[in-house]
Amino acid sequence: MSEALDRFVAEREQDWVLQRRAFHREPELGFTEVRTAATLAARLAELGFEVRAGEAVMRPEAMLGVPSADQIRERLAAVRAEERLRPWAQAMDAGCTGLVAELRRGAGPVTALRFDIDALPVRECAESDHRPAREGFASTRPGLMHSCGHDGHAAIGLGVAEWLAHPGSGWRGTVRLVFQPAEEGGRGAFPMAEAGVVDDADWLFAAHLGCGLATGEVAAAGVEMLWSTKLDAVFHGRAAHAAGNPQDGRNALLAGATASLNLHALPRYQGATTRFNVGRMDAGTGRNVIPDRCHLQLEVRGETEAAAAWLEDRAREILDAAARMHACGLEVEVMGRTASAPCDSAATAIVSAAATDTPGIHRVIPEYSIGGGEDAPYLMRRVQAGGGAATYFLIGSDLADCHHSVRFDFDERSIALGVRLFASIVERASAGPPTRVHRGPTPQDPDVGAA
Amino acid sequence: MSEALDRFVAEREQDWVLQRRAFHREPELGFTEVRTAATLAARLAELGFEVRAGEAVMRPEAMLGVPSADQIRERLAAVRAEERLRPWAQAMDAGCTGLVAELRRGAGPVTALRFDIDALPVRECAESDHRPAREGFASTRPGLMHSCGHDGHAAIGLGVAEWLAHPGSGWRGTVRLVFQPAEEGGRGAFPMAEAGVVDDADWLFAAHLGCGLATGEVAAAGVEMLWSTKLDAVFHGRAAHAAGNPQDGRNALLAGATASLNLHALPRYQGATTRFNVGRMDAGTGRNVIPDRCHLQLEVRGETEAAAAWLEDRAREILDAAARMHACGLEVEVMGRTASAPCDSAATAIVSAAATDTPGIHRVIPEYSIGGGEDAPYLMRRVQAGGGAATYFLIGSDLADCHHSVRFDFDERSIALGVRLFASIVERASAGPPTRVHRGPTPQDPDVGAA
Amino acid sequence: MSEALDRFVAEREQDWVLQRRAFHREPELGFTEVRTAATLAARLAELGFEVRAGEAVMRPEAMLGVPSADQIRERLAAVRAEERLRPWAQAMDAGCTGLVAELRRGAGPVTALRFDIDALPVRECAESDHRPAREGFASTRPGLMHSCGHDGHAAIGLGVAEWLAHPGSGWRGTVRLVFQPAEEGGRGAFPMAEAGVVDDADWLFAAHLGCGLATGEVAAAGVEMLWSTKLDAVFHGRAAHAAGNPQDGRNALLAGATASLNLHALPRYQGATTRFNVGRMDAGTGRNVIPDRCHLQLEVRGETEAAAAWLEDRAREILDAAARMHACGLEVEVMGRTASAPCDSAATAIVSAAATDTPGIHRVIPEYSIGGGEDAPYLMRRVQAGGGAATYFLIGSDLADCHHSVRFDFDERSIALGVRLFASIVERASAGPPTRVHRGPTPQDPDVGAA
Amino acid sequence: MSEALDRFVAEREQDWVLQRRAFHREPELGFTEVRTAATLAARLAELGFEVRAGEAVMRPEAMLGVPSADQIRERLAAVRAEERLRPWAQAMDAGCTGLVAELRRGAGPVTALRFDIDALPVRECAESDHRPAREGFASTRPGLMHSCGHDGHAAIGLGVAEWLAHPGSGWRGTVRLVFQPAEEGGRGAFPMAEAGVVDDADWLFAAHLGCGLATGEVAAAGVEMLWSTKLDAVFHGRAAHAAGNPQDGRNALLAGATASLNLHALPRYQGATTRFNVGRMDAGTGRNVIPDRCHLQLEVRGETEAAAAWLEDRAREILDAAARMHACGLEVEVMGRTASAPCDSAATAIVSAAATDTPGIHRVIPEYSIGGGEDAPYLMRRVQAGGGAATYFLIGSDLADCHHSVRFDFDERSIALGVRLFASIVERASAGPPTRVHRGPTPQDPDVGAA
Repeated sequence: MSEALDRFVAEREQDWVLQRRAFHREPELGFTEVRTAATLAARLAELGFEVRAGEAVMRPEAMLGVPSADQIRERLAAVRAEERLRPWAQAMDAGCTGLVAELRRGAGPVTALRFDIDALPVRECAESDHRPAREGFASTRPGLMHSCGHDGHAAIGLGVAEWLAHPGSGWRGTVRLVFQPAEEGGRGAFPMAEAGVVDDADWLFAAHLGCGLATGEVAAAGVEMLWSTKLDAVFHGRAAHAAGNPQDGRNALLAGATASLNLHALPRYQGATTRFNVGRMDAGTGRNVIPDRCHLQLEVRGETEAAAAWLEDRAREILDAAARMHACGLEVEVMGRTASAPCDSAATAIVSAAATDTPGIHRVIPEYSIGGGEDAPYLMRRVQAGGGAATYFLIGSDLADCHHSVRFDFDERSIALGVRLFASIVERASAGPPTRVHRGPTPQDPDVGAA
Repeated sequence: MSEALDRFVAEREQDWVLQRRAFHREPELGFTEVRTAATLAARLAELGFEVRAGEAVMRPEAMLGVPSADQIRERLAAVRAEERLRPWAQAMDAGCTGLVAELRRGAGPVTALRFDIDALPVRECAESDHRPAREGFASTRPGLMHSCGHDGHAAIGLGVAEWLAHPGSGWRGTVRLVFQPAEEGGRGAFPMAEAGVVDDADWLFAAHLGCGLATGEVAAAGVEMLWSTKLDAVFHGRAAHAAGNPQDGRNALLAGATASLNLHALPRYQGATTRFNVGRMDAGTGRNVIPDRCHLQLEVRGETEAAAAWLEDRAREILDAAARMHACGLEVEVMGRTASAPCDSAATAIVSAAATDTPGIHRVIPEYSIGGGEDAPYLMRRVQAGGGAATYFLIGSDLADCHHSVRFDFDERSIALGVRLFASIVERASAGPPTRVHRGPTPQDPDVGAA
Repeated sequence: MSEALDRFVAEREQDWVLQRRAFHREPELGFTEVRTAATLAARLAELGFEVRAGEAVMRPEAMLGVPSADQIRERLAAVRAEERLRPWAQAMDAGCTGLVAELRRGAGPVTALRFDIDALPVRECAESDHRPAREGFASTRPGLMHSCGHDGHAAIGLGVAEWLAHPGSGWRGTVRLVFQPAEEGGRGAFPMAEAGVVDDADWLFAAHLGCGLATGEVAAAGVEMLWSTKLDAVFHGRAAHAAGNPQDGRNALLAGATASLNLHALPRYQGATTRFNVGRMDAGTGRNVIPDRCHLQLEVRGETEAAAAWLEDRAREILDAAARMHACGLEVEVMGRTASAPCDSAATAIVSAAATDTPGIHRVIPEYSIGGGEDAPYLMRRVQAGGGAATYFLIGSDLADCHHSVRFDFDERSIALGVRLFASIVERASAGPPTRVHRGPTPQDPDVGAA
Repeated sequence: MSEALDRFVAEREQDWVLQRRAFHREPELGFTEVRTAATLAARLAELGFEVRAGEAVMRPEAMLGVPSADQIRERLAAVRAEERLRPWAQAMDAGCTGLVAELRRGAGPVTALRFDIDALPVRECAESDHRPAREGFASTRPGLMHSCGHDGHAAIGLGVAEWLAHPGSGWRGTVRLVFQPAEEGGRGAFPMAEAGVVDDADWLFAAHLGCGLATGEVAAAGVEMLWSTKLDAVFHGRAAHAAGNPQDGRNALLAGATASLNLHALPRYQGATTRFNVGRMDAGTGRNVIPDRCHLQLEVRGETEAAAAWLEDRAREILDAAARMHACGLEVEVMGRTASAPCDSAATAIVSAAATDTPGIHRVIPEYSIGGGEDAPYLMRRVQAGGGAATYFLIGSDLADCHHSVRFDFDERSIALGVRLFASIVERASAGPPTRVHRGPTPQDPDVGAA
């Protein structure tokens, strides 16, 4: 394989970089990745993949934090003129921007690869020392940016697809590429998992670029992801003139302030790391009006499912009580969730072996702690429930600035490295299903003894 | 009358002062004024008054903030050895320490006088520049003190009774002396009002010593009293080891802290003065234990009944929500209430006339603002409801320190002045019932227009 | 005069209404009233008034809450093409959009009239049951609206000017029309007062339309205005990943929440009504980031200058401490102030007499309580300081909805009524200066006695 | 040794139990353990130990949370009549109730054993199902109780001393018994460590009874102790009548409430467990008085020294700001500290070996998590700094109820087991100093990478 792959990469790498830059230029938020997904779908179909899109691969009832119909429609309109993309876009009108592309080569295991494709609400830096600005591929959509590297993920996915479709690639069985929308906010993986897209998979490999590892470094397992729930809460009070009849008001700002303080004051949790944040608060209409509305954006996280659930329950209790305290109404909406899943040793062994053999990769780390949340674990847990093996691994890349920054950029050499690594992983995995799965530790709530 | 009264006062004044000092020496808290009331009852009966005590003059169901049975029993025990007091004390075993003493002289109006007799939980100053300490009549009950002057009120009441029983006094009809317990905390007047003790009164006169007026000054009407409710709230949480299993605790201290902040943050009220205070908070058991209990003592006040009721409703809402917020139980108990009542012009005219004619009184003020609350208005409102006239007036007295202070003391010349003033008031009132009552303004909630 | 005025009003009324509608169509926020002021200036100059504008009538250092240079420039650009307005606009480039227009007729007192001209950041209702929408004079500047009636004030001012310039009008001495910007937020009167524009005035009359009075009603004195200060506070914290390194963050949202609760919990003030409001809070950037910024818009109000100053001092103390509590930086800016002034009996007598004689005015109220704040008192106090007399009176007008509402509209008959009333006032005032001024009560902090 | 020890234990066990019961009957709080320490000193001196007491073994400047002189004097008075104890008690008049007792047998390592001896402010259960009550050795000092088992520790220390002084015991070198006061609250170990009492020790063994392990179980190393600081904070406000002049008050209760909420809302700390608790709050004097005083008892804990220090710094910042917010004064006092130290493998190996060979001990656990804090680590760290080895181990004991409970009691068979275990440990340790120390992990603040 190696020589054929070398030639293939040498030939195609420049196109993958250009494709990444095209994605970068037109970032799309979660559940509105119409152009991105349609572009991928059209190309994958050309390559011979059987491509499914829309509700066939996403369960609409399981989608959280879906944007307004207007926002989705605006994206559909953006590709209307493009014949090649329009048919694919039509399937996505409810925000179902996920894709599943499958290729079969006779008997053999089902190997699933997952790539996330959404961008962030970040206003990209326009200064000339920011390479995308200097080299002309900065975002053309003000306020939106690929500042987490998912444009790279999508490009890698496309490169892998090209190689897998190439007669020189040495795998067998079934490969299934899962292009997932809305990873940011923890929204896209769950409805795809619920649609069953990986239920029969023997293997699942998901990856992220960067994350603090340098170009040429690979970690076979990302650990210590946190379970999380993202909540929006809106307090509905009653306006009143602050001087004229203050007693007629119902102060939604004070409800939100009280909630915020008490939410942050929730106790630590013995035996599991927890996190809490009210990241946004927007309340009131004018200086001299009792605020009649307060919008909070918050999130709870926990090392175990039980700890996260406990924290969410307590948070809801506090929100509810804060509303009652100021005689306000309350709406609470789940905007997203992330989960945690163990990385299977059978899968991490394949990643380690593949990384060791990949030219350009000089360091392989067995486990690496992930601070933030991810929703890939929802897919991993489905695979594991069916007896398959999964891992979430990291492909190092020198970064210009940290993830989510307005100056984020990654080392584009990582795209070809990623393609090579996935190619090698698929070849190894397709040799057979995992025999017996040894899971890494799943953090559990301890039996807390006397203390 | 004047000359007879002059002689009588000259003869008796020293005894009244001694009686005041005896009361001062043995202060008794609200609803435990067993010795004070029994002493008064025994003497009044000797003077020929028909004396009623206990449940005959107080409706037990209407009593708030009643001390423990032990505290009452301790007082009953204190007089057990005294034959003269014991029979009277027996009627008071449920805390009903009020007295009504009546004397009749043929046809004529019913003139009621009200005197309050309870002391405060204040530790009296023991230094020699505090006269009660220097002259040997300081409190013998540590932590309790007559620091509001009710010992003087009781002495004045006794002096007035002596004169009214004296053949030289020139009144007619019925005089009814109401000795009321538990004015502090707003607890004693209401159950006496509910027992109907002034329902048939044509006149009611209540007074207070001091209040910022100097010896020789009198104000005919105390105005701007506030309606109030005194509440005790107890949050019941759950203890847990603060390091070992904090998530198992239910933090009553944080419930109390949140309640306190939000209670104080209740809005101002258009058109009526309001006040709010959490005066005491006591929470938790030990440094390393999640606090499982929090006790708040609070009060709401309002210039109108509606404003006070609105504030109490909102306060209860906040207490309830604070308990829910920290998953605590909650008990709220009303510990006392005060009211407001207008002073009737017919009654204030009598006080003004009486004061003008009383030797030693050199200044008569029509209206004087009362900062604190009083429960005499509960009795005043009953009289007014029956068509009678009432006022709450002030008898100036030079004070050593402000009311409720550990160094409080008043000018004992005010006792004789008070007796003379009440004597003159009774004589004038007994001339006939009020013909047509012109009330002073009762603050009302305004129709708040556009603003 | 009366007949001449009748004819004049009959002839001109329709034009005044059209002028009002022109103002309504192009609302301008405080300190950007370039077209409004230039339109007035050009017309007043044509009428023969000596017109001064810009820094000649406003002290720039005394201006608070001035909009950005861009916002002012945008308005200057809007009139650039209009020769008639451009010269006047040029004087206003620093936001000095006030005007003073003077006319003299021999010896006699100086009579000043004040009209405010600014609009509000309110998005006007576009539905057909809203008359300005239905009849085609709704705001053409989205998000801005004359929803307080200052378009009517400007039209009345213009009508009065026309009459005063008319040979049939019977006044003498000097009339000085003060067109004041930025009344909303309490910003425009103070810099005009500081520029001395009314220092030599014998009389000052200011008025407001509506305020809860019906068409045909007039109140000669608006009382119970509150002193106020409008503050903006910005807490500067430090962002950090809420899961990755929360301890590195400095939480500006919690600083703002704590400040808000404690600001609202400031105590009531004995002897003077106070008000407090945090009307807006906007904090944080994203759900999973420790909020690094929090913006509060708040206001303090007090019945006396001392009470308002005390409340402002305490508010600043709390803001400062809240910043320290969360190790944040803090900026506090005064965005506006309003004051209170007594209405002089000499001036209210003139208003009452004028109103009584004005056809169409059927009810004259001596005093009327104003809930909100006003900055006209800054001008009134300057006049009073110089020995003159002033009043702030109210011209009733049936309203479609309350002031500041998106559906606000007033009864346009009030324009002609207002012109007639001011015409009559000027004629009466110009008869001579006030002889001896009897002021209405200025609320003062009481000497609080013992309570 | 074994047979001699068997005989010795058989003979002495009953006395040790009686001695424990004597300690139990007269519990003494930290730094007032005059009778306990003097009893031990007298007996140890009789056994031939060189005993040092008072400031010779405790550095007074390093003592935190010292009781009042009165409380210490009361204890000194309690033993004044007892000739045998009086000389020892005299050294303890500043609360220096620690003892060091040394015995030498030629060349050999210095082996230190540490026993803590203080009781708790707990009111012992008086019911007959509580063995100390039933069998007549319950506390005779109301409100104080040995509810943590330190009476057992003292009895074990005495038993070990007797055996070490016995000619049949097979150790050599130097044994040094450290009887430490005031372990509760984390106060006694630090001043003894600062006095250098273990600086030259080759070995240090400290132990605790119970802690969730059953009789017959031993854990060789207690791990996961937390660094902690115990703080008392007093806010000094200004009282004012809540209705009469609320604006003159400075509300210490609201300062305490705000501090409590914000303290609990301090962020989690990446990489180290932290804990926080405000365990007590006591504020205000009366319902209608603005609270002028608020007392908080709080503690911070962290898995690393840096995390605990960070939390303490932030806590002080919040307390300071809460005081400023309400214009209150503030006093903050450190009432105690605990530390963490690793257990050395050389020392835990000795404990494991000794336990394995001790009759009655049937289970040996290598490591056991300690929830609460301990101050023994201050002594351990001094030993380790000098190149010695130390461990904190656990001696299981069936408990009647959890530690610090009013019904706490332990299985008295643990006393003899403890003596045997320490005897065996000393014999093994005295064979030679630790050669090379392998420490267990000391939790450190991680280099937090990108996340």
